[in-house]
Amino acid sequence: MTQTDRDPLSLEERASLTSGRDTWHTEEVRDVPAITLADGPHGVRRQRKGSGDALGLTDSVPATCFPPAVALGSSWDADLARRVGAALAREASALGADVLLGPGVNIKRSPLCGRNFEYFSEDPHVSGVMGAALVAGIQSRGIGACVKHFAVNNQETDRMRISADVDEQTLREIYLPAFEHIVRTAAPSMVMCSYNKINGVYASENHWLLTEVLRGEWGFEGAVVSDWGAVNDRAAALAAGLDLEMPPTRTDHEIVAAVRAGRLDEDAVTRAADRVLALAGRVRDAERFDGWDVDEHHELAREAARGSIVLLKNDGVLPLEDPGRVAVVGELARTPRYQGHGSSHVVPTRLDGAWDALRERTGATFAAGYRLDGEPDASLAAEAVTAASAADVAVVFLGLPDQAESEGFDRTSIDLPAVQTDLLRRVAGVCPRVVVVLANGGVVSVAEWQDAAGAVLEGWLPGQAGGSAIADILTGAHSPSGRLTETIPNRLADVPSHLHFPGADGRVVYGEGRFVGYRYYDTLGRDVAYPFGHGLSYTRFEYSDLDARETGRNEWAVEVTVTNAGDRTAHEVVQLYVAFDEELPTRPRHELRGFAKIELAPGERSRVRFALTGRDVAQWSPARGDWRVDAGAFTVEVGASSRDIRLRAELATPGDGHVAALGRMSTLGEWLDHPVGSRVLKSRLRGADGFTSGGSPALLALARGIPLAKFSTFGIGLSGDVVDELVAAVRSES
Amino acid sequence: MTQTDRDPLSLEERASLTSGRDTWHTEEVRDVPAITLADGPHGVRRQRKGSGDALGLTDSVPATCFPPAVALGSSWDADLARRVGAALAREASALGADVLLGPGVNIKRSPLCGRNFEYFSEDPHVSGVMGAALVAGIQSRGIGACVKHFAVNNQETDRMRISADVDEQTLREIYLPAFEHIVRTAAPSMVMCSYNKINGVYASENHWLLTEVLRGEWGFEGAVVSDWGAVNDRAAALAAGLDLEMPPTRTDHEIVAAVRAGRLDEDAVTRAADRVLALAGRVRDAERFDGWDVDEHHELAREAARGSIVLLKNDGVLPLEDPGRVAVVGELARTPRYQGHGSSHVVPTRLDGAWDALRERTGATFAAGYRLDGEPDASLAAEAVTAASAADVAVVFLGLPDQAESEGFDRTSIDLPAVQTDLLRRVAGVCPRVVVVLANGGVVSVAEWQDAAGAVLEGWLPGQAGGSAIADILTGAHSPSGRLTETIPNRLADVPSHLHFPGADGRVVYGEGRFVGYRYYDTLGRDVAYPFGHGLSYTRFEYSDLDARETGRNEWAVEVTVTNAGDRTAHEVVQLYVAFDEELPTRPRHELRGFAKIELAPGERSRVRFALTGRDVAQWSPARGDWRVDAGAFTVEVGASSRDIRLRAELATPGDGHVAALGRMSTLGEWLDHPVGSRVLKSRLRGADGFTSGGSPALLALARGIPLAKFSTFGIGLSGDVVDELVAAVRSES
Repeated sequence: MTQTDRDPLSLEERASLTSGRDTWHTEEVRDVPAITLADGPHGVRRQRKGSGDALGLTDSVPATCFPPAVALGSSWDADLARRVGAALAREASALGADVLLGPGVNIKRSPLCGRNFEYFSEDPHVSGVMGAALVAGIQSRGIGACVKHFAVNNQETDRMRISADVDEQTLREIYLPAFEHIVRTAAPSMVMCSYNKINGVYASENHWLLTEVLRGEWGFEGAVVSDWGAVNDRAAALAAGLDLEMPPTRTDHEIVAAVRAGRLDEDAVTRAADRVLALAGRVRDAERFDGWDVDEHHELAREAARGSIVLLKNDGVLPLEDPGRVAVVGELARTPRYQGHGSSHVVPTRLDGAWDALRERTGATFAAGYRLDGEPDASLAAEAVTAASAADVAVVFLGLPDQAESEGFDRTSIDLPAVQTDLLRRVAGVCPRVVVVLANGGVVSVAEWQDAAGAVLEGWLPGQAGGSAIADILTGAHSPSGRLTETIPNRLADVPSHLHFPGADGRVVYGEGRFVGYRYYDTLGRDVAYPFGHGLSYTRFEYSDLDARETGRNEWAVEVTVTNAGDRTAHEVVQLYVAFDEELPTRPRHELRGFAKIELAPGERSRVRFALTGRDVAQWSPARGDWRVDAGAFTVEVGASSRDIRLRAELATPGDGHVAALGRMSTLGEWLDHPVGSRVLKSRLRGADGFTSGGSPALLALARGIPLAKFSTFGIGLSGDVVDELVAAVRSES
Repeated sequence: MTQTDRDPLSLEERASLTSGRDTWHTEEVRDVPAITLADGPHGVRRQRKGSGDALGLTDSVPATCFPPAVALGSSWDADLARRVGAALAREASALGADVLLGPGVNIKRSPLCGRNFEYFSEDPHVSGVMGAALVAGIQSRGIGACVKHFAVNNQETDRMRISADVDEQTLREIYLPAFEHIVRTAAPSMVMCSYNKINGVYASENHWLLTEVLRGEWGFEGAVVSDWGAVNDRAAALAAGLDLEMPPTRTDHEIVAAVRAGRLDEDAVTRAADRVLALAGRVRDAERFDGWDVDEHHELAREAARGSIVLLKNDGVLPLEDPGRVAVVGELARTPRYQGHGSSHVVPTRLDGAWDALRERTGATFAAGYRLDGEPDASLAAEAVTAASAADVAVVFLGLPDQAESEGFDRTSIDLPAVQTDLLRRVAGVCPRVVVVLANGGVVSVAEWQDAAGAVLEGWLPGQAGGSAIADILTGAHSPSGRLTETIPNRLADVPSHLHFPGADGRVVYGEGRFVGYRYYDTLGRDVAYPFGHGLSYTRFEYSDLDARETGRNEWAVEVTVTNAGDRTAHEVVQLYVAFDEELPTRPRHELRGFAKIELAPGERSRVRFALTGRDVAQWSPARGDWRVDAGAFTVEVGASSRDIRLRAELATPGDGHVAALGRMSTLGEWLDHPVGSRVLKSRLRGADGFTSGGSPALLALARGIPLAKFSTFGIGLSGDVVDELVAAVRSES
């Protein structure tokens, strides 16, 4: 039902629709039902009744805790994300929620960001594809998805006030594309604006962001909701394109007064109310589910975790198929960390510990080894060393303490606690075969300690079924198939944003620009611990028969054959990069433009297909305010990580056909390089050849950089009138 | 004489004074004489009469070609710069010039900048001190100096149009301080605005830069002249604070019309004309010189070159005191490169080649070895290898080709020509002792080839007496005393601006911010080939007895004893850095704040004294629009390079006393950390301790980041009224 079916809503009624009734509901107006919102990027957080404050984060109704985005993203499995989304929606529906506040698709600009566990990747393509799949899954069951945090919310430090100062090219190429892809392809019901300012303007009051880009360019038709408490000036927010303030600040009367006083356009209120109404209508019409199969969803959570775990390193110790005596070391094997702190925190329906799962399958012993709070405990450590010395293989669980990462603050180090790495060294001293299993939401450094381990398994925060999933991988029941969506640097100081994070004095300058993650490391050829896209398998994949061809103007098809050359069924993540070889970098050396996760039996092969368009080879042009494709060659790279490119092919683009208009301030070089300008210049100007010959190369290079209008100031003819005549001539002939 | 002594100048007369009569002169108006300007940061370029265009750069009257700034800066010798300035002024006076267009004090942001040979350093302190000394020297003889290019002109690519997009903190801490120091301490007659835009506004039209900062904050009382052709809109330029357009565009009538039409404030014209008049008056009163002693100035040029040469590496082969048979290899020893291309080009009075000087003193043979244009020539190379194989020591002269660096364009590589490095390898294969002497204006990479040389001498572009100066150093007649004012990186990709140079699409984003040169390498602990401040000597200096003490509020004295522990008289450059040790960098790890070049005989010692003030430990605060000193500890480092710190002392600053006012949007953490706010919060708010205890550390950290005004939106009490009351209370009690 829309507004047109009934008597028009009064201004007061419309104003009331633009902020909530309470923390988790929109207003009911006449027969328009309230919309119930719930946190939930990886599990439904439906707060218990009476638990009224939004910071009572851990007191919610049990729901399946699926792997947080850091893990789900590492699966590179869009179908899996879609299925997880559908399961989330079923639980949301059963728990009475209409909209799930997720996914979060902010870019991992720094490994220090406290909320990285809620985000997918340092790369916008992975973030966009995985986010869109999750949205599609959620919305397939009539529940609304709410993509967040729009935009450029890449840190927790001072997040409610800080201005993220980013140039537009970086915004367009790095921080916005995931949102753009999701809006264009998955039509989410809602977008949540972020707390922070962008170039000085709060996201909640940013007309350019919420109206010009989101709606005008991308065609978003849903409602924009504030992050909880992100509105600072409701009238300004409504005028900018924010539709729903959450939670309510009880200021609807101010909105009415602002309209009456002429300080706020009534249309802004009407538009916002209409969008909330439209959403309420869709919500009312959605099918509802009574409950869900807890075991089935737990099993899906386990499958998702299994697909997300990344085998960083393996000297052959894994899988543990006939391992002999196994010692499980580390409190984290018994007390798992499986999600992060903050609004995304879920009370799980069950919880699998890795030790339980391993004991069952390998008869492993257990020693806690360290305290989770980082305090040294000599007896725990000694006990673990004793246990390891009696074992053929030690599986050592290391990770970040529970309090190390959360919404609301950032880390200041990427190191594991010293008590843990000290213990690892001691275990490695007494046990010949050591496997490390990591639990962490943000990337941790491995360079200092990984020589002590024969294998390293990055388990992330894997959700409630993570423990059994880890056992599935360790024992070889499944081959690991997760891949890094974030580079693991050798040290924090290597991170591109290191000198510009988290800012100070109310602002953070995104100085590294577009060179985030592998775009930085690979362009500069800098060593990393593990590159973007990396992840080992228990089998071996071969790439062959790359075919890259033009299929239309600025359209290309790329195909490659991938063969499982090993002896186990396993998944491979085939990655497609578009690369540019430049003397001085004007763009990242290569960028991910496609990926596909495929499962192959031993000996099986598959033909993987990708399509590329002009946008895939474009850069944002700040001068033109549009995407720009320059004519020229580029390279298609297909491989298993950003640094494990198996096959390459050259392609070329004719460009976008744009020819810059010449003017008085165009340089001599631009005139000489212009198809018409060169002719005009030489035909109208006797002696123009003198510009291009006779002088020394250095003088010519100097002259080429001078705008035509400036030559007269150097006393070299070309008066203003002559330049005007040349400009008129080139315009008439172009 | 000033305007008040005669009938007022008409508007037309005043307008005419604000642009030149021709390329090198201001207008004569009534009895006000024209001012004659001449290029000349390292030598007077007085164009021959009739050679009217500004690009006829190489046709000027002979004058002493002193070492360009790249070399003079490397002397770290302010007294030397002052003496060179005085000599320049004498020549300018003799050649009829009133103002010398120099020095150039732009920061070397990238080694690729084609005009780096005209600039002093990657560091603003060195640039400011050396620039001020040159200005003082020039102006000591009544000639005006013109500091350029103001501001942020750090590349040649698209220099007449490009916008340098730089945040204000970076401007204030890196790109403006050299100008500020010179204006405040040396009162130059003129400042030349640059061609480029700064954050979108042409320097020539930048009111903030030319009026608010330059005059308002720094107290500049001279005239601002445009770089040649830098004016795009004369009325806008006059309004912004530009006084003199050069060369004239014959648009005085437009200025008059703009005033009459009310589009331009007449006061702007009057102010500009008055400044030109004042300068003309000073010029007329200056003592004139008839000529100069060519030999004496040549000898000063030689002394300056000698003080500038940097001994990068020495395994003991240098000095060549009893060298046996010496082979001089390399065309550059016979055909020296001693200056760069562009407006600074000087026709020298004499020219010393290194081979001539070495032949005289060592009986060296010579082989050209390579062609200067980079084309391979097998017979030249073979001849050189033969010569080297017959020698006990080979002195190989390598360098950039004449056309590689110039005003007007930038380099794209920092490598030496391959023909030269190939030759070096072959020479090293047949001769046991190899010395490399470099000729280059911009830094060249050494990492690829320096293992082939026992010693490397960086000769820069050393001016007309460079050849004999190099021989002075090689033979041990003088000990080398130059020090790097610019880091030599291992490779171009290590340079902090590498991903942001030279920009595109009309803009260059200064993404590396304040982390230019050693500020970047040292903060990140990244390897370099040779660090900032580095330079070897033939003797050895010891540092002792560091004394650092407070002498007043935010004033400190630092003293250190330096002893010549070797057996030769030599110079040391004692460097003082102020350092901050931070977990996450919020500023460069250390910054040069003082230096002193001292000469010591063997066994002699000297007590070197420095003074520090609050400004030396301040950072620019964009939020406050002022310098900010935070209370806390800092370290004084004294040493021989940025990576050869010999002694350290801890000091502390009480800060600048600024206490930020608390408000609604101040965070809980800011309230709790505030001396009054903490008390108010706890006394007025029962249960406020609940914020600081009871919750988990993660929850507390989360809460500390929330502005007080936002708590109500999370349903945790603290209504807007309560917050207002708290703010009122803290303000009344503060």
